Parts: sequence; C-alpha cells; structure tokens
Amino acid sequence: MNNYKNIINTIGRVLQINSILMLFPLIVAIIYQEPFETTIVAFASASIGTFIIGTLMNILKPNSHQILPRESFIIVSLSWLLMALFGAVPLMISGCVPNFFDAFFEMSSGFTTTGSSILTNVAAMPKSILFWRSLSHWIGGMGVIVFILAVLPDNKEGSNMHILRAESPGPQVGKLVSKISATARILYLIYMALTVIEFLLLYLGPDPKMDLFSSITLSFGTAGTGGFAVLNDSLASYSPYSQYVIGIFLMIFGTNFTLFYLLLIGKFKSVFKNEELRLYLGTIVISVVIIVISLWTNRIYPTFEECFRHSFLQVTSIISTAGFSTTDYCGATQWPTICLMVILFITFTGACAGSTGGGFKLSRVNILFKSIIRSIKKMVNPRKVELIKDSGSIVDDDVVKGAQNFFIVYILILFVSTFLISFDGKDLVTNFTASLTCISNVGPGLGNIVGPAGNFSSFSNFSKFVLSLTMITGRLEIFPMLALFDYKAWKTR
Amino acid sequence: MNNYKNIINTIGRVLQINSILMLFPLIVAIIYQEPFETTIVAFASASIGTFIIGTLMNILKPNSHQILPRESFIIVSLSWLLMALFGAVPLMISGCVPNFFDAFFEMSSGFTTTGSSILTNVAAMPKSILFWRSLSHWIGGMGVIVFILAVLPDNKEGSNMHILRAESPGPQVGKLVSKISATARILYLIYMALTVIEFLLLYLGPDPKMDLFSSITLSFGTAGTGGFAVLNDSLASYSPYSQYVIGIFLMIFGTNFTLFYLLLIGKFKSVFKNEELRLYLGTIVISVVIIVISLWTNRIYPTFEECFRHSFLQVTSIISTAGFSTTDYCGATQWPTICLMVILFITFTGACAGSTGGGFKLSRVNILFKSIIRSIKKMVNPRKVELIKDSGSIVDDDVVKGAQNFFIVYILILFVSTFLISFDGKDLVTNFTASLTCISNVGPGLGNIVGPAGNFSSFSNFSKFVLSLTMITGRLEIFPMLALFDYKAWKTR
Repeated sequence: MNNYKNIINTIGRVLQINSILMLFPLIVAIIYQEPFETTIVAFASASIGTFIIGTLMNILKPNSHQILPRESFIIVSLSWLLMALFGAVPLMISGCVPNFFDAFFEMSSGFTTTGSSILTNVAAMPKSILFWRSLSHWIGGMGVIVFILAVLPDNKEGSNMHILRAESPGPQVGKLVSKISATARILYLIYMALTVIEFLLLYLGPDPKMDLFSSITLSFGTAGTGGFAVLNDSLASYSPYSQYVIGIFLMIFGTNFTLFYLLLIGKFKSVFKNEELRLYLGTIVISVVIIVISLWTNRIYPTFEECFRHSFLQVTSIISTAGFSTTDYCGATQWPTICLMVILFITFTGACAGSTGGGFKLSRVNILFKSIIRSIKKMVNPRKVELIKDSGSIVDDDVVKGAQNFFIVYILILFVSTFLISFDGKDLVTNFTASLTCISNVGPGLGNIVGPAGNFSSFSNFSKFVLSLTMITGRLEIFPMLALFDYKAWKTR
Repeated sequence: MNNYKNIINTIGRVLQINSILMLFPLIVAIIYQEPFETTIVAFASASIGTFIIGTLMNILKPNSHQILPRESFIIVSLSWLLMALFGAVPLMISGCVPNFFDAFFEMSSGFTTTGSSILTNVAAMPKSILFWRSLSHWIGGMGVIVFILAVLPDNKEGSNMHILRAESPGPQVGKLVSKISATARILYLIYMALTVIEFLLLYLGPDPKMDLFSSITLSFGTAGTGGFAVLNDSLASYSPYSQYVIGIFLMIFGTNFTLFYLLLIGKFKSVFKNEELRLYLGTIVISVVIIVISLWTNRIYPTFEECFRHSFLQVTSIISTAGFSTTDYCGATQWPTICLMVILFITFTGACAGSTGGGFKLSRVNILFKSIIRSIKKMVNPRKVELIKDSGSIVDDDVVKGAQNFFIVYILILFVSTFLISFDGKDLVTNFTASLTCISNVGPGLGNIVGPAGNFSSFSNFSKFVLSLTMITGRLEIFPMLALFDYKAWKTR
C-alpha cells in the first residue's frame, strides 16, 4: 500500500495549493464588495473545505518517497481531474453556475487553458468568478505540479522527473539545469516576468477600456494561452494597441520557454538554430499571409489594417491555443473557407513544445514530416539508413515512435469525442471542431454554436462531461489519462 | 537506360490491354444501335489509337527483365494515371463528357472503383458509356497489372512480386501458391465466378427493372466495389430482392480473397480464425445496429424492414467502399448525425485487405489499435516486451511501422486534398467528405453537394484534378504515388 500513500499525499498537496489559490478570488470579491452570501461565502467555504481534504490526505506518510513512472501518470491525471472538480465548487455554491457539469466544464476549460465556456453572458458574472477563471489559466498554463516542484524542497529528484515528464507538453522533456526544482523555478520566474511586462504594457497603454481588472485577467489568459475573456465579444472592443500587445505576447507565450532561458544566458546561436521556432514563425507568417490575401481580395473588412490585424490576432490566438477573438469569423463577418482551413490546421498543430500552449505541438509536426520523408526514401532505396535530425542533433528513434503514436492516439481521441457528442444531434462541423478545439486546448470551434461568438451551453450534460475529459486528456498529452485505464498502473508494488 | 525500357514496355502492355477492353463498350454501342458518329466512332478510334501507342512503347526491348522495387512504383503509378487518361478519351470524342477534367475524373473514379461522378444525369448517357464506366470498375477492382500477371507467361517471378506488392491493397501481400501468375489466375477465377453468380441472381430474380444491361453493369460495380449506377437514384428504385442481393455480394467482395481460396481448399479453420474477417463482420453488425436503432426511434422510415434494409445496404455499400445508395440520407430523408458519424467511420476504415475494396483497411485498424494498447502497456511497464499478434501469428515490426506510417500519410493527404479544394469556397463538410470519399475510393460524401444524391460537377477543374489524383493515390495506397516525387526513384541504374 506504500505507493498509494505516496499518490494520495501528492494529490493532497495539489488540493492544498488549490485552496490557497482560491483566496485570491476571495480577495477580489471583497475588494469589489460583491454580495457576501454569494461569492465571498462560496470562495471562503470552498477554500477551507479543499484545504481540510488536502490536509487529511497528507496524514498517512509513506515510508519511501520513490515514485514509479506508472504512478506519476496516476498522480498527474487525478490531480488535474480533482483540480477542476474542486475548482468548480465555488461556481456552484455562489449560484453563478449551478449545474455541476457546467461548472466542471468551465474549470476544466480554465485549468487546461482551453478557454471554451458554457457562459452565455460573461460580462454579467461577478468579478471574482471571472478572476478565478483567468487565474486557473495562469496556473494551468505552466502546470500545477511544476508549480509544486518549484515551491517544495528538492528531496526526491528522480521521482519528480517522472512527474515533470507526465505533466509537461512536448515530445522530449529536458532539464535546464541539473536540479528539477531549480529548473521549475527558473521557468516560473520567466513566466512571471513576462506576465508582469504584458500587464504593464496593457495597463499603462492608451486604451481606456483596459482597466486594472481587464489588464490582469487578460494577462493571465494570454500567459497561460487560455483565452477566457471578461467581455462578451472577447477582445473585439479593445483598442488596436491592446490587441496588438496581446497578439505579440501570445506569440511569445507559444514559444518554448527553454529558448528564453538560452537567451538569458546568452546562447543566441542555439535559439536561432532551433527548428521548431523557425517552423513556428514560418507557420504564423504563412497563415497570416494566406488569410490577409483572402480577406482583402474578398473585401471582408474595409481597410487593409483591419484585414491584417484580425488575421494576425486570430492566427496568434489560435496557434498559441489561447483562443481569444477580435472578430466573429464564423458569423457576422464570415471568413472564406480557405481561411477556416488555415484556422483548423493551426488549431490542430498548436504552438511549440515546452510553451504554455496546447495542441499537437510543432516539434512533433516536424518529426512526423521528416519520418514520412524517411519512409518514402526507404521504400525507394531499402538499403539506405536515414537518421532524423532536429535542430542539428539526431532524434532518438523512441522519440520518433512516440510522436507517431501520439498522432494516432490524438486522431483516435478526436474521433471518439466527436462520435460521443454526436448523440446530441448537432451538425458535424460543430461536433468535430468542438472536439478538436477541446483536445488542442484552443477554445473556439467553427460554426454558429461553438464558433468565436458562440459557447458550449447548448450541449447535453453528457457531452459537456465528454468534452471536459477531452480537454484534460489533451492538456496531459493523452497517455497519462489512458494509463488510468490500464489496471496494471494501479497495482501495488 | 535499360530500366526505362522496362518501364515503358510494361506501361505499353497496360495500354494494349486498355485498348482491347475498349472493344467491349464498342460492341455494346453496336448492339444498342447508338448513333455511329458519337460512341461507335469514339470507342473504335480510342481503341485503335491506344493500341498503336501501346505497341510503339513495346518496340525497344530491354536486355534484362529485372525490375527493382523503386521502378515497380513508377510502373504502377504511371500505368494507373495513363489508364484513366486514355480511358477518358472516348468520353471526350463521343461528346458525352467534353471537358477533359470531367472525363479524367470520371475514369479515375471508374478504374479506382471510387464511383464518384461528375454526371448530373446518368440515365441520359448512352449505354456504351455506362458500360465502359462499369467495366473500368471491374478491371480496376482486381488491378490491371494483376490482370496482366494472370494472362502473361511467368518469366520474371521476382520482379512481378514487386509490382504485385505495389498494386495490391493491404499491409502485407502474400502469394497463395508458389507462382505469382498462378496466384493471380486463381484470384481472377474466384472474382469472375462470384461476378457471374451475382449476375445470375440479379438477372433471374423477380425484379422487372433488373434487365440484362442493369444486371451486368451492377454486377461489375459490385464486384469491383465501385459504385457507378445506371439510374439517377443509384439503387433506390430496384426491388428489395435486388438490393439485398447486391448488399450481400458487397459484403462478399469486401472480404479478403485469400479466404475464398482457403474455403475452396477446405481450410475452414483458418478462415474462422481470421481476425480481420471477424472485425469486418463485427463492424458491419455494430454499424447496422446503431443506425437501425437511430432510424427506427427517430421514425425516419415507416416500417422496420425499410429501416433495416436501408441501414444494411448503406453500411455494406460504404464499408465495401462501393458507394451505391438506396436512400438519400443527406437530403430527402436526412439521417441523424450519429448515423452520419458511423458512415464517416466506415468510409475511412473500408473493408478487408486483399479485397476489391478501398479505404484504410480493417487489418490496419486492427494492427494500429493493438499498437496503441502496446504503447500504453509499455509506458506503464517499460521493461516488458509485448508482441503484436494478428490471427494468432506475430506481426512483424516493419508491418506495424508500415501501418502507422500509412495512417499518418493517409491523414496528411486527406488534409492536403481538403485544403486544396477549399479554394472553391464550398463548405467544410463538403470539402472534407469529398476528399475522404475519394482517398477511400467510396463514392459519395456528405451534404447536398457530394452526398448520395449529389455529384462532383460543381467543383472547379483544379479541384476535379486534385480529387482525381486523390482517388488514384488512395487506390495505390499512397506510397507508389509519393515515390514519383522522389527523384532517386527515376535514377537509372
């Protein structure tokens, strides 16, 4: 039973952190003098309850702190499920989102940094609730367990590496410095610094609509590449200045954080040699160009600046998997089909590995593409041995296999999710893009229902639950969630 | 230059066969006394012209008959492209399909046994043209080069195996008996016998609409799992008896032909042990059950028999990748979304390897699914070595890798095709399902435009050409076509 204690302990610590995080929206509720019996009671009681449960889970101490890989999958999967579950409690208690499946969907969407919402009127929500949603983006973006690693003392080095691997996105996970806790701390410092810079640029900028509350919550949403907004039209009514600032920071937060560290320590060459970064910038440029040409030739907006701005904002917002929008490209200003195809493609690819963005990750696209080329070459010339390289170094064959497996499972989960929510009877584009946007943690899909101006409120409870699990599965890059179904992962040592 | 001669010779022989095949619709044109200056002139001149070109290509004889694998890809790809190209000539000369891209699309669809059409009024076409379309299904179903192998003397055993491999569908290609020509002959004899039995059951059945011409052409369309019909509503106006006969034969032609051979020589056990067959029958049963329940509970048809018949016919027709229809499930009698999801799924999977059906093939689905299970098990327990088995025998790791690669490339081509035809500005469901139905060689997509009651006439010439190539790429299971782009495949020895 030893490893069960270890699992329960770690999850308990996650819940303790969660309870502390709930104090921030409580403060917001007090500052904005929200009615005592709604949000203040809700966050206070949820925080206390969560803390008690988390502490109870830490009573039984294990003899050994060693965590096996299979246990790390269970820890990570259950932690994220419980974070969304406990995070949903204040939404229900406050009466803002009374339905359990709605609240669970909303907080799954928050912590996984998806940004899909079941709210039909975001602006009418109490500020504390909106703050809690946006804060969950900021925590979820970097990973709550990475946060624990950054904060806690570093006594179980090997075990933590398994957990880091299970929670962090991308085909390969490396350490920046020799200690994991130090690595996690560096990553969080970069993350905080960038968030603060964005906040200052937004708050001190010339946009009258960008008040303190908007600046903070939107900075959280950008940093975690989440996408929850505080107005009903997402970013549409902010000034072009604010929109451009957010767009540029979305690009930044979609970049592998290792590169910022390399920049900080002066290794500029390694940054410029990075293939994924070049693929990322290249994909953004090509996507923006295709959409701008299409929008401009079809006269979708009156000025070229608007064509460019909406194109740039939508592309950076989708590829970083935030999912903010500045225009309703599936409704009032319907974009041409070719633009939607570009949007679908970058909804799938997502951003760079090791960023706060979700999706399939461009480094995997890169590896997969090279493996296709290799198999064609091998077919034509069976005797030749070809190695796959990424940024100049040879990619281990296990990583190639991993990327291939990941692709297959990604498409499988996408199909299963689409199939299951089809029972609601909605159209195919809605079902498919809803599933895609959830597994990629983007936010909006296509069409009137789940498009940029829509929301997920009209789905059945069953579908909302399926999509919530799809989001968490996508955020954890699938395999930790699948491991829950392998009974051997649960076996005691 | 030696191997170029070999390539040219083999393709020349394919064209000679093609010219002989054109004599059959010529006979049909004469029997039905069609106007001399349209179809009779068209088929006669196309046949003569094709024969002359094919013969000219056989003048220069190579010194060696050895064919390398990379050359076999070129032979197979070019053969299929030229078959569709030369097959399109009589359609253009006769004036029935004057546009080159239309005619090329129609014959690509014929030879690849897709069955998608650009014709808006099938019933108005001369019988010789309809016969030519259906005959191309019958030839394309089994493979034109397999046909040559069955007919020609057997002097280049090793080389022929490469070609057989490049043309035959499925993850693994085996010989039934030691000689390839004998294997090809057995396969063609089974194929012919089954076609004749179906023809007799249709022609001698009680359906007054099933005349000699309909019985022959629909038997061709069923055997090749093509799907070209001779009436505008596909199979809808034939009697339930005829529909059931066709449905059952579609199931039969979607089965691996090796199993029929095993049945003939009395190896019943191997047949029952075959996993792909069980998966095939299981998928049909589950699909029919889901659709019947959905149709019956939603009262889509007045009687249960109709719900069952339309469900059974649509499922067998799509999974075998024929693409006949007995009801307009995307128009007049709109089926619920969940039924369409089932249809999309079996449009993708297709039938068994080694059948005349297209698609991804169920044996690959089986292998992929097992490889996913394996990777989860491996993640949970890294030290354990798991082998993948199919029908009791171990699957070679190269076959597993091949299936994974095939999946990745399948989805890639599907995306590229969808993207390219999006420039036409049609909706996403139309573009995606048109590409899916073409790469899987099924026939109908979803929606009003390319659904069972629709046709492909409204696409631009560019899109028609893209979809034609998608069909041929799908029929040849992608890699031979991709090899055309590797310049090393063209290098002389």
